Amino acid sequence: MIRLAEPRDTESIWAILAPVFAAGDTYAVPRDITRASALAYWLAPGKTTYVAELEGRIAGTYYLRANQAGPGAHVTNCGYISAPWAQGRGLARAMCAHSLQAARGAGFRAMQFNLVVSTNTRAVRLWQDMGFAIVGTIPSAFAHPTQGDVAAHVMWRLL
Amino acid sequence: MIRLAEPRDTESIWAILAPVFAAGDTYAVPRDITRASALAYWLAPGKTTYVAELEGRIAGTYYLRANQAGPGAHVTNCGYISAPWAQGRGLARAMCAHSLQAARGAGFRAMQFNLVVSTNTRAVRLWQDMGFAIVGTIPSAFAHPTQGDVAAHVMWRLL
Repeated sequence: MIRLAEPRDTESIWAILAPVFAAGDTYAVPRDITRASALAYWLAPGKTTYVAELEGRIAGTYYLRANQAGPGAHVTNCGYISAPWAQGRGLARAMCAHSLQAARGAGFRAMQFNLVVSTNTRAVRLWQDMGFAIVGTIPSAFAHPTQGDVAAHVMWRLL
Repeated sequence: MIRLAEPRDTESIWAILAPVFAAGDTYAVPRDITRASALAYWLAPGKTTYVAELEGRIAGTYYLRANQAGPGAHVTNCGYISAPWAQGRGLARAMCAHSLQAARGAGFRAMQFNLVVSTNTRAVRLWQDMGFAIVGTIPSAFAHPTQGDVAAHVMWRLL
């Protein structure tokens, strides 16, 4: 069950964001980001934020926004995070499929991920499986906590 | 002469931004953006904004910022705009060279342009000449006012 995030979801969303941002190996967010800043980022004006429930608990969250303004506003950008306990149950895939539909409904014509960390091979493969192509690779774009500066991909698909 | 923008430069900066944003063929900014929104964008918190003077007049402006936060914060991003009357005098090149030095001084390790409109061939060639490589090309990323959806390049170089 995937639905729009509501104010009552805030604590559950933070519980999902916190370990991922602290790990620092997938998102370009400071590892020591505060709860307030993390929520301000994930629920920022201009983002539409969803939560995914499994067994009555919030197991994942994603946001959808215009990646650029004006002449770039037909391209959407999303970010997805699943709770550790929900891994391996198709949640990221379900959220991505939901976001593709939501983006089409909102009139977007393409979806772009700006920074898919190359060492996050599970994500790269999943997005490829969901129809995204690697349209660019930025060398040493991401300071990985254990692997040094690693490349990041720009991934894209039409809607 | 290139120096940090000051509050007294606001009107001159707007005079440079306005025709470029209204033309809508290079920046992912709404063509009908207001003066206040354009200045808020160009002088946003997190951006360091410079102006370039020619013959005592402000002839160009650029900003420098971190392109991403946290593990992506070692990569800078810039935007440059010259006044129409200053075209063809090496101003964009001078501002880019200045920004490379400023970025090195600020500790950045690479510079990335996220959306170089492919039809803006003069800019693409100039950035290549300044050491940038096309590391990605996003199909139909930019709704050009006369040419439809055109591709945009991601361009990048080490500092």
